[in-house]
Amino acid sequence: MAEAYIGGTGMTPFGAFPDRTGRELFAEAGLAAIEDAGLTSENVDEVFYGNFIGTLSENQGHQGPLAAEALGTTAPSRRVESACASSGLAIRDAVRAVRTGDVDVVVAGGMERMSNMGTARATDGLARAADDLFEVRAGVTFPAAYALLARAYFDAFGGDRTDLAHIAVKNHDNALVNDHAHLQREITVDDVLEAPEIAAPFGLYDACPISDGAAAVVLVSPSYAAEHGLDSGVAITGSGHGGDTMALQDRRSLSKTPATRDAAEEAYDDAGIDPTDVGLAEVHDCFTIAEVLALEGLGLYRYGEAIGAARRGETHRGGSLPVNLSGGLKAKGHPVGATGAAQVVAVRTLLEGTHPRSDAVGDDVTVGLAHNAGGTVASATVHVLEVMP
Amino acid sequence: MAEAYIGGTGMTPFGAFPDRTGRELFAEAGLAAIEDAGLTSENVDEVFYGNFIGTLSENQGHQGPLAAEALGTTAPSRRVESACASSGLAIRDAVRAVRTGDVDVVVAGGMERMSNMGTARATDGLARAADDLFEVRAGVTFPAAYALLARAYFDAFGGDRTDLAHIAVKNHDNALVNDHAHLQREITVDDVLEAPEIAAPFGLYDACPISDGAAAVVLVSPSYAAEHGLDSGVAITGSGHGGDTMALQDRRSLSKTPATRDAAEEAYDDAGIDPTDVGLAEVHDCFTIAEVLALEGLGLYRYGEAIGAARRGETHRGGSLPVNLSGGLKAKGHPVGATGAAQVVAVRTLLEGTHPRSDAVGDDVTVGLAHNAGGTVASATVHVLEVMP
Repeated sequence: MAEAYIGGTGMTPFGAFPDRTGRELFAEAGLAAIEDAGLTSENVDEVFYGNFIGTLSENQGHQGPLAAEALGTTAPSRRVESACASSGLAIRDAVRAVRTGDVDVVVAGGMERMSNMGTARATDGLARAADDLFEVRAGVTFPAAYALLARAYFDAFGGDRTDLAHIAVKNHDNALVNDHAHLQREITVDDVLEAPEIAAPFGLYDACPISDGAAAVVLVSPSYAAEHGLDSGVAITGSGHGGDTMALQDRRSLSKTPATRDAAEEAYDDAGIDPTDVGLAEVHDCFTIAEVLALEGLGLYRYGEAIGAARRGETHRGGSLPVNLSGGLKAKGHPVGATGAAQVVAVRTLLEGTHPRSDAVGDDVTVGLAHNAGGTVASATVHVLEVMP
Repeated sequence: MAEAYIGGTGMTPFGAFPDRTGRELFAEAGLAAIEDAGLTSENVDEVFYGNFIGTLSENQGHQGPLAAEALGTTAPSRRVESACASSGLAIRDAVRAVRTGDVDVVVAGGMERMSNMGTARATDGLARAADDLFEVRAGVTFPAAYALLARAYFDAFGGDRTDLAHIAVKNHDNALVNDHAHLQREITVDDVLEAPEIAAPFGLYDACPISDGAAAVVLVSPSYAAEHGLDSGVAITGSGHGGDTMALQDRRSLSKTPATRDAAEEAYDDAGIDPTDVGLAEVHDCFTIAEVLALEGLGLYRYGEAIGAARRGETHRGGSLPVNLSGGLKAKGHPVGATGAAQVVAVRTLLEGTHPRSDAVGDDVTVGLAHNAGGTVASATVHVLEVMP
């Protein structure tokens, strides 16, 4: 059952735009989404805005009202922050608002601007998604934290750097036709293996780039959708959210991500589907290992079996389950606060046939999934999108 | 009708605690609220956490999972940020979550830690609640912005510094018995008028202090409340949220706050009450003029008439409408992200007879209101609380 119809979607290209303000980026994405829905700013009842470190990168807190203003409205707004899962959460809380019946049309999305900070300040800023007292002060950065997860995974289930390299190659390849992707550059397994090491076992190509950009989704209540001819196309039919300890030291296992598992179970239950119904997925691949952890947490692969999925071609286009046809965070880019919304934009347009990679989506595919994670998966959201009859 | 029962409430004392971490403060408030509800951490389905500038004051983003951990759970969480209205919004979005039927027990609250920053850095941090490009770079600080609102109000409706001084005196007086208040100090109208000027027409006593602290509310679904004997006491029966332009320059009027008006109208409508039903109110008095703007935006006074309310004794205890019996932000203190939740804690305990100022609440008073504002009221939330039969 549709919890909220996706009336429209919009996103900026992802890349390095140090001279564009956050409000300018969000205006581009949000106004495109509103226009795509055939609506105007006056139709917007509420705004849910995801952003992680605008307080640092633009000296700007209280961004909700600015995001609303960027859309030409003073509708009520709030910023939702959950690190890299900020706009996944913005969408989740927006879906709930629609479900209460209080609102008919909401814009949920997000924005991040990081290239203006420079790499060192941005890396330091990103570290605020980890536990400052117990991880960051011990020297943990995100490349290091995910490298630790990769090592733990290899220890538990096997796998090696070459398996991971195939994920990077696949996602770069998917992005080649995507003009909105930050990195449109073909790479080989050898390129990945020979790249400079950033945190063993990762080389440079195991990591997503630091990106700027914005993405937005117009969510519409089923009753409003029926009245305004928006009740065809794609709807969100399931939403889930999971949590875990912030610091890795407090986890029972470093090779599994229970926040993703919990979010997925809730979303599947909500949508009334099984993992086997999922025909394509956009998952949170901030580092190559993250795609593996996601696919297993989502129940799309058994534990220990996703590590070889890209190498076997299963998750490539034409495979049994295409993953990150947009290019993923790895190649499309990862403007933190925009990522969760951009995943929903990708799944919707892939299912509707308007994404540059829609030709890789089989006619029988009607269910897609978007998985957004915060920190080292201390937060995760999952949304199930379905083509409505 | 109860949208969510208040199962329990908790808060830390408000004050300057530069050596206590944010997680420690929130643990104190949140665990007290859970215990007050007769529940345990395992009962908590979800956490809504309000915080404004932890990214600056504690180098900590992604605070949702840390807030949950402070309560002894890995339940799903998010941070909700809307400047000084952050935990008002956290409560609003938590009420909605309960209304969807997805969750039965949620903790909504917030925390701020600012005294460790020092006054200059804290003032700079607080300025991030204004428009960085069009206000802050022009030199606007919050004392200056609210001073502008006071001048605009005086121009539009009359009134003077002495009227404002009576508000400060009243709120300090209310706080005298409140051990959780930051400022327990009796002041006179002359003290206020003779205090050092901070931004004309304001002197030092027209401003709230920079405080640390946390507050939390356990919200329970009506069905869970009925099953577990929590369906007596006080419930949230109405919730409203309004928005306005971020920058003052874009407002049609500086003497009115339409975000408060919109939030109030929605909350009254939701609760099925009129402003005349409200028997006590906690309103967002970050500066003395803010109490006036709030009372008029809330429809508790006509425009131009609230300026003399404190001077006439109407809003003092024993008056026709006691306002800020807790001491308000002015004297109880204003740990930004905790304030909205602390207002709900105050209204609930005042109505239930467990607040130190409950003796000032008439037996016939069954409806209270909490009003939280962000920035120069670019965001506002209103919650109606009622004693359930």
